[in-house]
Amino acid sequence: MFQPQNLREDQVLPVEGRSGDLTCKSQRLMLQVGLIHPASSGCYHLLPYTVRAMEKLVRMIDQEMQAIGGQKVNMPSLSPAELWRASNRWDLMGRELLRLRDRHGKEYCLGPTHEEAITALVASQKTLSYKQLPFLLYQVTRKFRDEPRPRFGLLRGREFYMKDMYTFDSSPEAARQTYSLVCDAYGSLFDRLGLRCVKVQADVGSIGGTMSHEFQLPVEIGEDRFAVCTSCSFSANVETLGSSQMNCPACQGPLTETKGIEVGHTFYLGTKYSSIFNAQFINIHGKPSLAEMGCYGLGVTRILAAAIEVLSTEDCIRWPSLLAPYQVCLIPPKKGSKEEAAAELTGQLYDHISEAVPQLRGEILLDDRTHLTIGNRLKDANKFGYPFVIIAGKRALEDPAHFEVWCQNTSEVVFLTKEAVIELLSHVQVV
Amino acid sequence: MFQPQNLREDQVLPVEGRSGDLTCKSQRLMLQVGLIHPASSGCYHLLPYTVRAMEKLVRMIDQEMQAIGGQKVNMPSLSPAELWRASNRWDLMGRELLRLRDRHGKEYCLGPTHEEAITALVASQKTLSYKQLPFLLYQVTRKFRDEPRPRFGLLRGREFYMKDMYTFDSSPEAARQTYSLVCDAYGSLFDRLGLRCVKVQADVGSIGGTMSHEFQLPVEIGEDRFAVCTSCSFSANVETLGSSQMNCPACQGPLTETKGIEVGHTFYLGTKYSSIFNAQFINIHGKPSLAEMGCYGLGVTRILAAAIEVLSTEDCIRWPSLLAPYQVCLIPPKKGSKEEAAAELTGQLYDHISEAVPQLRGEILLDDRTHLTIGNRLKDANKFGYPFVIIAGKRALEDPAHFEVWCQNTSEVVFLTKEAVIELLSHVQVV
Repeated sequence: MFQPQNLREDQVLPVEGRSGDLTCKSQRLMLQVGLIHPASSGCYHLLPYTVRAMEKLVRMIDQEMQAIGGQKVNMPSLSPAELWRASNRWDLMGRELLRLRDRHGKEYCLGPTHEEAITALVASQKTLSYKQLPFLLYQVTRKFRDEPRPRFGLLRGREFYMKDMYTFDSSPEAARQTYSLVCDAYGSLFDRLGLRCVKVQADVGSIGGTMSHEFQLPVEIGEDRFAVCTSCSFSANVETLGSSQMNCPACQGPLTETKGIEVGHTFYLGTKYSSIFNAQFINIHGKPSLAEMGCYGLGVTRILAAAIEVLSTEDCIRWPSLLAPYQVCLIPPKKGSKEEAAAELTGQLYDHISEAVPQLRGEILLDDRTHLTIGNRLKDANKFGYPFVIIAGKRALEDPAHFEVWCQNTSEVVFLTKEAVIELLSHVQVV
Repeated sequence: MFQPQNLREDQVLPVEGRSGDLTCKSQRLMLQVGLIHPASSGCYHLLPYTVRAMEKLVRMIDQEMQAIGGQKVNMPSLSPAELWRASNRWDLMGRELLRLRDRHGKEYCLGPTHEEAITALVASQKTLSYKQLPFLLYQVTRKFRDEPRPRFGLLRGREFYMKDMYTFDSSPEAARQTYSLVCDAYGSLFDRLGLRCVKVQADVGSIGGTMSHEFQLPVEIGEDRFAVCTSCSFSANVETLGSSQMNCPACQGPLTETKGIEVGHTFYLGTKYSSIFNAQFINIHGKPSLAEMGCYGLGVTRILAAAIEVLSTEDCIRWPSLLAPYQVCLIPPKKGSKEEAAAELTGQLYDHISEAVPQLRGEILLDDRTHLTIGNRLKDANKFGYPFVIIAGKRALEDPAHFEVWCQNTSEVVFLTKEAVIELLSHVQVV
């Protein structure tokens, strides 16, 4: 396993600066256990555990998006300047756009978002009928943003993975229905991840449109501030409220302010982009009509880091169960120890689990660094946050053998026979 | 389904030029049925069918790479100039590198390949032991190359998906063994895809190293030329042979020249990069030693287009079975036709297949454009290349109902009861 561990604090200073205030718990832990490695300011190598976790998250996002009719596409990162000039965002986005020229001098930016590209793509379809709508098109790709101060590891990088969906409807009513549908799918995703996000009213910013919400994960290091009404369901990013606003605009109840990490953002765009690129369809009366659009983002790499930020202890990573890179870590006895005779049992247990619990195939890691004590490897396993750590210790030599099972999510330690281990693991959900 | 169809020839001219010689069969067909859509010169939007096929191909690549111990990582596209200056490739790669500066004036290129980045990453691990090697690290990500003449759709684009693997071994012997292992895994992949690739000796080009092979798919529009000996197993890219070489250097037998598309490329690098970045490990004698490296590429989007190029007819796309975006297309009767009563049977068949053949869940498409005749939809289905097309026509009204089943890969048309359909489909392999 290529798993660089940097367990000494002084090895994990971020490349973006040497001042301590630019780090946070998730960044520190992810660097320590080798989930990420700095490549350049705001850019990280994702190492094998992170890739596994991210692929699980992407599968969950695919499930949620496809359940509401989402279709997956994949648009280039090189985005021609003329598209951005048409929407006036070539100037508006300023220094956040990474720009370049090709060998012929043609200008591009590296897409931070794809409203222009997708609208031009849909506009190129000249014979769309209202009967074919809605379209819900999404992709999970790298995005680029030249952050003035990249920080907090994957929470605010310059190159990151995002799921961006763009929807096309035949009427404002239909578009609002689609908007609700996508918001509900986001809610369902965060529920499955066990992350308590708050959906708050938000500013439309440079994207534009007439309605917007953010999905905020409450946490102290969050860079957003949002207000929640303690009397009704109102909540909003403080950017959308007057600075003197102390009471809920809906019920006049008191507002409480919280910090959060924005993990999702939705926009009802209306015809802002469809009018620029002429994305039309033939309506029920046989007349051309502009598509009503929405756009919807989820920060894929950001969700990984944000989840680690809120779930972990100061020293140990904890994952949403479904995203743990491996569900099970098996620890055989140390070479030359009294328990060494149980080494074979661990291998057998590995085979038994793989056979009896097919969904865990490929989810079980055998920590074969048998030159280390069980205690040292248990300490590592605890840091990595495997949901189940199974040790072949002293009691593995009993008849029948008993394995020591650490259940991270319930903080229980139990001694189980092989049969009981399999019964326990057969309930593990994987994605 | 967002599936732009451009079935008129004049709608599918490539953006890169209006002259006919820049197109090829796969590009024309992929544009016609809406698998890809031009974004800018050499850059394409991948539409839903292509994303499905590509995800299947990536799953197969993951299986093959992980079967030989490959671990998946993910490196940024923004690649700092200093890495490329260290290897002298900042100059050597010339105008093929897309270059840019960030807001602080720091220079980057968009990675066309990642020897520098991965070697610097492994070099940062200061305590590697020979016992931990080999490492086989790979990623499947977008790569960028500013081609002077992008052409042939996904076959030679400026932004494309590539699987790139980098291996680190503790001795030249071990590295050569790893090299064979990866070549065999490539062979296994192409076998499973049903693509007869030829492994030929190749030039090391700008990557460098001491040994290199290309995996060439023989096809007339291929831009590479390679020679095969008719008497022994020798084959080589003609670039590696003298221009006057007519006979096999191994057995003096006659050489036959063939055109091919390079779908894979392997390099034994030795210590070319590990010496530049000081990627060391502690050898069996306790001394630091330079890692022996290899690098190995597969053109992911290129394989999709190349497979379509060699398997398709002039008018109809054909896929490697495992990569077909959907395995089954169901065609219910036309609305208002004599057979309309069989419409319900098609829905039932859909449910039956999903239940009885679980691996086909999500692989069945119901063509519900029932305003079109069966014949028109069959024509489309034929163009799209679904391995199985199942029609509820006249004989669906018989008791028991008989469905018309077109098996694309054997060119058979048979009439089958529901039970026989399920028996047939239960043998379909999916990835």
